[in-house]
Amino acid sequence: MLIVQKYGGTSVGSVERIQRVAARCLATAQQGHQVAVVVSAMSGETNRLLSLTRQIHDDANDREVDVIVSTGEQVSVGLLALAIRKAGGKARSFLGHQCKIVTDSAFSRARIVSIDGQPIRDALARGEIAVIAGFQGVDESGNITTLGRGGSDTTGVAIAAALGADVCEIYTDVDGVYTTDPNVVANARKIDRISYEEMLELASLGAKVLQIRSVELGMKYGVKIHVRSSFSDAEGTWVVPEESAMEKVVVTGVTVTKDEAKITCEDLPDTSGVAATLFAPLADANISVDMIVQNQAYDGTTDLTFTVPMGDRKRAVEILREKVPELVGKSGERISYDDDICKVSVVGVGMRSHAGIAKKMFQLLGAENINIQLISTSEIKISCVIASKYAELAVRVLHEGFGLAQPPSERTSV
Amino acid sequence: MLIVQKYGGTSVGSVERIQRVAARCLATAQQGHQVAVVVSAMSGETNRLLSLTRQIHDDANDREVDVIVSTGEQVSVGLLALAIRKAGGKARSFLGHQCKIVTDSAFSRARIVSIDGQPIRDALARGEIAVIAGFQGVDESGNITTLGRGGSDTTGVAIAAALGADVCEIYTDVDGVYTTDPNVVANARKIDRISYEEMLELASLGAKVLQIRSVELGMKYGVKIHVRSSFSDAEGTWVVPEESAMEKVVVTGVTVTKDEAKITCEDLPDTSGVAATLFAPLADANISVDMIVQNQAYDGTTDLTFTVPMGDRKRAVEILREKVPELVGKSGERISYDDDICKVSVVGVGMRSHAGIAKKMFQLLGAENINIQLISTSEIKISCVIASKYAELAVRVLHEGFGLAQPPSERTSV
Repeated sequence: MLIVQKYGGTSVGSVERIQRVAARCLATAQQGHQVAVVVSAMSGETNRLLSLTRQIHDDANDREVDVIVSTGEQVSVGLLALAIRKAGGKARSFLGHQCKIVTDSAFSRARIVSIDGQPIRDALARGEIAVIAGFQGVDESGNITTLGRGGSDTTGVAIAAALGADVCEIYTDVDGVYTTDPNVVANARKIDRISYEEMLELASLGAKVLQIRSVELGMKYGVKIHVRSSFSDAEGTWVVPEESAMEKVVVTGVTVTKDEAKITCEDLPDTSGVAATLFAPLADANISVDMIVQNQAYDGTTDLTFTVPMGDRKRAVEILREKVPELVGKSGERISYDDDICKVSVVGVGMRSHAGIAKKMFQLLGAENINIQLISTSEIKISCVIASKYAELAVRVLHEGFGLAQPPSERTSV
Repeated sequence: MLIVQKYGGTSVGSVERIQRVAARCLATAQQGHQVAVVVSAMSGETNRLLSLTRQIHDDANDREVDVIVSTGEQVSVGLLALAIRKAGGKARSFLGHQCKIVTDSAFSRARIVSIDGQPIRDALARGEIAVIAGFQGVDESGNITTLGRGGSDTTGVAIAAALGADVCEIYTDVDGVYTTDPNVVANARKIDRISYEEMLELASLGAKVLQIRSVELGMKYGVKIHVRSSFSDAEGTWVVPEESAMEKVVVTGVTVTKDEAKITCEDLPDTSGVAATLFAPLADANISVDMIVQNQAYDGTTDLTFTVPMGDRKRAVEILREKVPELVGKSGERISYDDDICKVSVVGVGMRSHAGIAKKMFQLLGAENINIQLISTSEIKISCVIASKYAELAVRVLHEGFGLAQPPSERTSV
């Protein structure tokens, strides 16, 4: 088999841990597999480098910032290749420009365009373990780029796609993807198999084990992703095409996010184009609006409520006051906002063929007197905005109500 | 003018110092010059990275060690380019592989083969300050290499040669090259102009302001080197072709080194091939023998005295005992050694046309009852091995005796 392994910053956070990773890579190779390893910077290193740059310049989207922060992964690959050789194996490191991980030129958040797998395949053919720097690439002009936080996951899956690998193993400090946060619900269960689509919904909702773009890439190229612990040999969670997701369950997981704020604009004229006028200046300011609900018009006026990232709330209110005073009032007197909200969601591909999930979700929350402020749904997800003080309670009742603590085979139907 | 500036690790040792260097680069550019800057790693960084690698693997000549330690300079160029832009200038960083500093594949001590100056010239033509990583290159296969300690000086001079620069300014924490160590002789004088040849002799004798190879390179390509302080605007020392060295002096400087030890082998048979037999095992062990003196034969036997680097003395004695017992005795009873020696030298191109320098040197030392143990001479240098306790005294009497404290025009003849 050709196996791509990706190790995060915690897994290579010290010399001792790097030596443990080296032993793991070698053990895999000694089972007769070809092994390509993608590694992140040692934990804390990227932050150290970013803080150096911020002492000089606070524009994080600068060409030079990528030159600086990409050194974290460069040190990791060198050390891991050394450790593998010291342990008796053959290894060679590859930087982004050495295996032509070509990206666009969007510094600090570049997207991979192509990879030249040949130098890596040559190394594997020589019996070497290829140790590849995650997170970094080069643009068409040879400038160094980085893929944004968590970008090493994306490098791992992209390398697996370029090599046609049998699996991309993502090693992390947890042993897989859970039905919900085990810190909130003690009997949260590890999911054995999950579809790309579900994983995307879970990832975007805050299950931070996998970067979203790596899952998109896996889905696009059919790369089987195995999320597992670098501290044990236990099977983790397989992220696979939907048809092979063996657990025919309706609800796969429950998540909650607390990083959004709610803004309400009251007494808006109920005429066409109002929403467009309201949201245009926010889009211009690159503020992404998530859930939007417009009330039934009454007396020729209507209310509009939406959520924005918490960090953008203050700026969003200021922009609306300044750009559309005719809608929200000169001092913004028709705007109100609420930072104390959270969004709780249930996710599952089974919802496509199953009615009644939304009804059951509302009932479960209602039974605890949790008021639902906003609702949004997709094919495989239902999200409700509620007061943030109910976040953990809501997760527990939904996890219990949908029977997620039991193995899928033992669950009662919805 | 096209000016190459090189700043060492101390000059870029903190964010504040990097900002000071940025201001200096900008000031030079604002005088209408084109500026290319070569920088070292922040002071301490290379040692930090090397100590990381040594925790894993103690072979310093490894491909991966160069991958790791070259990140030090990568961080420096990014930070300096950021600082120049923050201060209002235009700047762009270049890594070894981005301006094709091609070297051989001798990891950790690679030699530069060629440089593609075009990307740098393009940047200069756009009005940018080119900020180039010192110490690093790539071999023909794209592997990252490093040039060895002090390699950034070499990068600076090589870049100046490739660009046809008017001058290569080497910024350091001293304000130039001195007639001798100012810590030993209070009235040591800064040398205004010195020839490449003299600088080579001074560099190899311990004046650590310039890496030897950078001077060789400067001589080969006629690059004018200006060694000066990064903490002042004063003129430093110009290293230039001999014909333009304006100071027609006989003796340019006095140096002393304490890092050698003396080994004597007594009662050797006075037959041909003895010296070859004795030195062959040392050469095989990569121990470099410096000064060699063989006594007049007497009674068919002779003595041989030579110096080796202090750190190799113990090993050298062991090797001789083991490999040539027929010459030095089974327990090495015919070997003696002395670690308490030093080598004091006077250097000057004027010696070529001036007799009497050696005589005067011996007289000056003799007047202080300093016994001379070994002598070696080159065209422009005379070195004497003496007891190390006389090191400072010898330097002072030679500096005084040759009148080095006076400007060249005021010196009396030899």
